[in-house]
Amino acid sequence: MRTRTSELRRHIGEQVLLQGWLLHRRELSAVTFLILRDGFGTAQIAIPSGAAREFALLGAESAIEVRGRAVADERAPGGVEVREAQVTVLSETEPLPVELHRPTISAELPTLLDHAAVTLRHVARRAAFRLMHASAAAYRARLVAQGFTEIFTPKIVGGATEGGANCFSVDYFGRPAFLAQSPQFYKQMMVGVFERVFEVGPVFRAEPHDTPRHLNEYVSLDMEMGFITDHREPMAVLGQAISAMAAAIESEPAAALANEDLPIRIPTTIPSVHFTEALEMLSGEFGPSVLGEPDLAPAHERWLGDWTMREHGSDFLFVTGFPMKKRPFYTHPDPSRPAYSNSFDLLFRGQELATGGQRLHRYRDYEAALRERNIDPVPLAGYLEAFRYGMPPHGGFAIGLERWIQQVVRAANLRETTLFPRDINRLMP
Amino acid sequence: MRTRTSELRRHIGEQVLLQGWLLHRRELSAVTFLILRDGFGTAQIAIPSGAAREFALLGAESAIEVRGRAVADERAPGGVEVREAQVTVLSETEPLPVELHRPTISAELPTLLDHAAVTLRHVARRAAFRLMHASAAAYRARLVAQGFTEIFTPKIVGGATEGGANCFSVDYFGRPAFLAQSPQFYKQMMVGVFERVFEVGPVFRAEPHDTPRHLNEYVSLDMEMGFITDHREPMAVLGQAISAMAAAIESEPAAALANEDLPIRIPTTIPSVHFTEALEMLSGEFGPSVLGEPDLAPAHERWLGDWTMREHGSDFLFVTGFPMKKRPFYTHPDPSRPAYSNSFDLLFRGQELATGGQRLHRYRDYEAALRERNIDPVPLAGYLEAFRYGMPPHGGFAIGLERWIQQVVRAANLRETTLFPRDINRLMP
Repeated sequence: MRTRTSELRRHIGEQVLLQGWLLHRRELSAVTFLILRDGFGTAQIAIPSGAAREFALLGAESAIEVRGRAVADERAPGGVEVREAQVTVLSETEPLPVELHRPTISAELPTLLDHAAVTLRHVARRAAFRLMHASAAAYRARLVAQGFTEIFTPKIVGGATEGGANCFSVDYFGRPAFLAQSPQFYKQMMVGVFERVFEVGPVFRAEPHDTPRHLNEYVSLDMEMGFITDHREPMAVLGQAISAMAAAIESEPAAALANEDLPIRIPTTIPSVHFTEALEMLSGEFGPSVLGEPDLAPAHERWLGDWTMREHGSDFLFVTGFPMKKRPFYTHPDPSRPAYSNSFDLLFRGQELATGGQRLHRYRDYEAALRERNIDPVPLAGYLEAFRYGMPPHGGFAIGLERWIQQVVRAANLRETTLFPRDINRLMP
Repeated sequence: MRTRTSELRRHIGEQVLLQGWLLHRRELSAVTFLILRDGFGTAQIAIPSGAAREFALLGAESAIEVRGRAVADERAPGGVEVREAQVTVLSETEPLPVELHRPTISAELPTLLDHAAVTLRHVARRAAFRLMHASAAAYRARLVAQGFTEIFTPKIVGGATEGGANCFSVDYFGRPAFLAQSPQFYKQMMVGVFERVFEVGPVFRAEPHDTPRHLNEYVSLDMEMGFITDHREPMAVLGQAISAMAAAIESEPAAALANEDLPIRIPTTIPSVHFTEALEMLSGEFGPSVLGEPDLAPAHERWLGDWTMREHGSDFLFVTGFPMKKRPFYTHPDPSRPAYSNSFDLLFRGQELATGGQRLHRYRDYEAALRERNIDPVPLAGYLEAFRYGMPPHGGFAIGLERWIQQVVRAANLRETTLFPRDINRLMP
């Protein structure tokens, strides 16, 4: 019966069997310590120096099995170590391309990514992905508790989701097809079926820029809900989902290893400014020319991130009411100011984390919006059909999962919080 | 404050606000009943015939809001109905392409799929997808409880996963790329990081056949675990996961609507036969020529499905030990009979539901396997690197989520249990 390192303290005085990888070997004069890492933590094995010689050639990352006795010792990490150990090698190793046992991994980003199979084993790197695991679970649990149904929609689509640009094309049995830029159309259609739906899945953007905050494939936490008044209901659900994700991270043991600069500061009500108010504030810093901007630039988002922390002690800020002309055709206008939309972005530490809004729900409004933007309605027929049959007012949002973790652990580059990132230059591993 | 139909019984005597769609209007001499469907169930609204005339033109699937009083009435479905109702139309409708209010939907499959935005609203169709929602949640919960970490791996890959055939190709900024046929390589690499991992996500198969049991995109429930003895540990985890999914389905209110022929018969220990034993049994039915077969044909799987029900009262059967030559290069041989593998398929009601096995874990074994099969190792370098550094014995499986639901509700065609199926002829909606 195998004991996980995380459970070792419960077996003091007992014979145990550990399985894992040799993280490190530390030789003192009288004793050699082997540090074993398994999927759950680490454990120290103490071997008298006389018996330690046989491990002198055992390389880091060898897969090993250790039988011995768990002994309480205050000097050991976690207050327990394994003695009288017999070590069996399950699988051998070669010299590592990078050292894994130091608190931070000293390699440049391309090396980290090229050798992902090894470098992801580093305790701080893997911790970020435990936080991703915990965040996705918290997101789903929160939405399920609010009556949402999980859906699985196709990623190969017959028409471009949002107008044709930035779509990867697929050879579909000789016919052209595309990779879905988002589940937008499908989640809206499913509002007619389940009223409240969510999806956690990959989305694909063929954007050719190479920045620390863009990737060409990422995981989107999507939701859509019906019978709303306006965009404020999805904003409220988004705030609750983010709070649940933050709480999950703070109770995850990996959090301490991923970054010392937790916690996440999220007020009960996330501050919110209208786009026009945001421009007013920004004009004080960037000059009056920003007042004519149709969208926020990254530098503007960073400034607003500093502002919301300074003024509200919040890592988050909603910006609402973006101009209609910068939002997709399905966006619902603000009835009182039709040049602006019932939409929002959520900034997290000065970077766009999520985007959403109220959508059009009347078939005739779609007809008008498509005509105005010169978009061919024919490839959209299966989507547009939903709006012929009593689609209620609805809205939703999409959160970028890797961006969430990037900001949580304050990584400089989104590639650090993506297991196997895809960018304009990288398809491997 | 809106009341969900599923909560109406808790509000007897109170003023309520319902929101949903008009499912049906039933006119009696003294009273007209409106049946409202929302995301959670249905409710009956009773309107005296004198007042009902204004609803005579209200079409099915109009989005409506009903304010009224919840009144206990044994004759009403669920023992409650809404009276003194004021009805507001939120969004209008057109005549439907198919009727939605009858217990079964009378339309051919192409009509169902072409009009998915409407037909998925039918109570029996949507129920199947509630079971999918419940199954995916149960799968994840079961694996998380056993120490598994959820991972998110790329779907655009630089090399074909399992040898090049049946891969969709993607134009990746002018370079060739592929859609992942499975997360196989990535989940194996992640065993070195988290030891136990799972993923729920889309996979893509460019198989040109057009059958009721194949689709070109589907959702795969994958897992991979390290430090195993052989394939029997993943088989045990698979049995437990399937049991958890079956239990979730039986406690889901939608189950009764999806199919009357529940429950799922799953013994505590799923029966298991070796591939050679299966052929022996099949030779009695299909003649001695089957003894030379390298794999099971669909007719063989159906016969074995009948056999396991007859002999063991089980909807499930493991077939183990498939010949090495029919399994992918990473398959681990049976040490005692190296022509056979430490692999398994799980049959559910006579159809392959899941496949898995133990994988090779030594780098030199991969070198030999690739050489023997004439597979170029160069595009696999990032994957093979994992095996240089102490990869322990490991294995896993993949379950087809839509196939699971297909068998659960006994649908004749996999397209009935896929929201928006993709096949050789269908890319829309």
